[in-house]
Amino acid sequence: MARTEINTLGEFGLIRHWTDQMTLTQPSTKYGVGDDAAVMDFGQHRTLVTTDLLLEGIHFNLEYVPLKHLGYKAAVVNFSDIYAMNGTPTQIVVGLGISARFSVEDMDELYSGIRLACQHYGVDLVGGDTSASMTGLTISITCIGQADEKDIVYRNGAKKNDLICVSGNLGTAYLGLQLLERERIALRGQTTGDHIAAFDGREYLLQRQLKPEARRDIIEALRKANIHPTAMMDVSDGLSSELLHICTQSQCGCAIYEDKIPIDFKAAEVAEEMNLNIVTCALNGGEDYELLFTCDLKDYEKLVPIDDIYIIGHITEADNGCLLIGRNGEQLPLKAQGWQAFESKDTTEE
Amino acid sequence: MARTEINTLGEFGLIRHWTDQMTLTQPSTKYGVGDDAAVMDFGQHRTLVTTDLLLEGIHFNLEYVPLKHLGYKAAVVNFSDIYAMNGTPTQIVVGLGISARFSVEDMDELYSGIRLACQHYGVDLVGGDTSASMTGLTISITCIGQADEKDIVYRNGAKKNDLICVSGNLGTAYLGLQLLERERIALRGQTTGDHIAAFDGREYLLQRQLKPEARRDIIEALRKANIHPTAMMDVSDGLSSELLHICTQSQCGCAIYEDKIPIDFKAAEVAEEMNLNIVTCALNGGEDYELLFTCDLKDYEKLVPIDDIYIIGHITEADNGCLLIGRNGEQLPLKAQGWQAFESKDTTEE
Repeated sequence: MARTEINTLGEFGLIRHWTDQMTLTQPSTKYGVGDDAAVMDFGQHRTLVTTDLLLEGIHFNLEYVPLKHLGYKAAVVNFSDIYAMNGTPTQIVVGLGISARFSVEDMDELYSGIRLACQHYGVDLVGGDTSASMTGLTISITCIGQADEKDIVYRNGAKKNDLICVSGNLGTAYLGLQLLERERIALRGQTTGDHIAAFDGREYLLQRQLKPEARRDIIEALRKANIHPTAMMDVSDGLSSELLHICTQSQCGCAIYEDKIPIDFKAAEVAEEMNLNIVTCALNGGEDYELLFTCDLKDYEKLVPIDDIYIIGHITEADNGCLLIGRNGEQLPLKAQGWQAFESKDTTEE
Repeated sequence: MARTEINTLGEFGLIRHWTDQMTLTQPSTKYGVGDDAAVMDFGQHRTLVTTDLLLEGIHFNLEYVPLKHLGYKAAVVNFSDIYAMNGTPTQIVVGLGISARFSVEDMDELYSGIRLACQHYGVDLVGGDTSASMTGLTISITCIGQADEKDIVYRNGAKKNDLICVSGNLGTAYLGLQLLERERIALRGQTTGDHIAAFDGREYLLQRQLKPEARRDIIEALRKANIHPTAMMDVSDGLSSELLHICTQSQCGCAIYEDKIPIDFKAAEVAEEMNLNIVTCALNGGEDYELLFTCDLKDYEKLVPIDDIYIIGHITEADNGCLLIGRNGEQLPLKAQGWQAFESKDTTEE
């Protein structure tokens, strides 16, 4: 039998490869594979479902990730997928595979983080499956959410001249990870645990990596301002990768401006210290869990007063391609160089 | 910090420990942790959700489990949980963690099994998450289902004098596993693959282990006969364990009769050959995915004509305890000696 390596297709290639031949037969299935969440019609509202699998050594490194933070993050990244459909997360189920290295107290910590996230976002934990694992910790969370059909925002609705917007700032979670990795390597073999001092004044970067939040506030602000995005997704793999998804699914091109991409001051400082290009970090870093969305040009006036939303470019015709316009007006094609599920051993997540 | 080993609490102890302090706040959450599936109200029907995590080396051994069968089984065990609530499975999402040992062709096999199960049971695959894994294969499936509120059967509705019924036969999947394990050990170090011959005439036992079915037919037969079970669950951990769950949650006792437990003839033959007690296998073997249910005594006449359902005892008051009545009338207390998620390295599943 032929052997094709998994990494030749990549995550999205694989998913297409496996799901292309599937026909959807349930009348309640409104939208299947291909967005932040699936959409079902079970009555007056639509039901949204999304799932994330987090594996030790791939998605997290327990040398510097506290279990409580890990639990919080594992829940929040799922909520973020539901918000990215303009929905409200309502329930989660949690699957845990636990190796003998972990104690009940360890798992209490993990659960206290999951619980905290549930309380903060008003989500119910309604079920799960717990078992032993041969090696390491496995966390599988599936999140259910709700939305009215008219409110749901898919990835495929962007159209020419739409504004491209992003919340918060980008690249910060990636730089937080670089700080943690640098300390881990520096401290290898040492017994003291005082490396936290090295992070002084950079707690925000660590928090962005270790305890991200989902942008419920942005969803609420858009609703309040009566703005309905034409396309939306959350930035988990990196801005370039996500924007290319929106353009592919919406059959359009885009132009974004390097000097409009929101960057945190401390993040820029750390990037310089580490000899990293901050714009590359912002384009490809991933794990920021900010919202990337497009909206109609007529919403411009309503958009401007909203805190923490930045207009970074606009949608063009497909023929124009997907472009990054540099500070001197040079045009570079956008490339998805973010998190590749089968290429890297980086501790980032889909 | 104190260290409590995970196996001191056991799976159900752990789940209680982690979820006792959780309050449910979403109006749509109708039932959380504690049954085969959670129940939500999203409109005219109830929505059911269940999740299963399958880990290589814990839940399956790829030395003798073909990937296509594994995919089929991973989907079917979730459908079984939805049927056990008297619901209909409608959608699944699949999370996969894949180590470099696997090729695209391997995962095609796995997916072809998942797809076959979906086609056979009319379920849509609507989403997922795929990533690399450091070691082995991880499969996480969450299944969504539907039921009318009045149709849902929980574990807590059994009452005194109810009949205790089980479908199919028990212990067969466990004996199939023993056959496969025996051959694996016998063939260690050999290069030929002709061991299938050793299974001649025992294909049914292997099929019960490798490619189980969910008992949709029993659910349909009960509906047709207008029988509404008072309590129900699927037999994944073993009859004793499941019956104790029903009695605990329904606050009642039970008496089941050794000679009424349905046993397959070939399974009995293999048990004898292996020096195993077939009744112990039936009580504690697990993975049969048959339905265990209780129903009102008045349904007796309607129950008898239905194929492949066996009445094995009746519900008593809680004070009487949970008893197995032997062939000579001796009374033994029922004990949950089935699959313990944190005790054994057996390749069985929750």
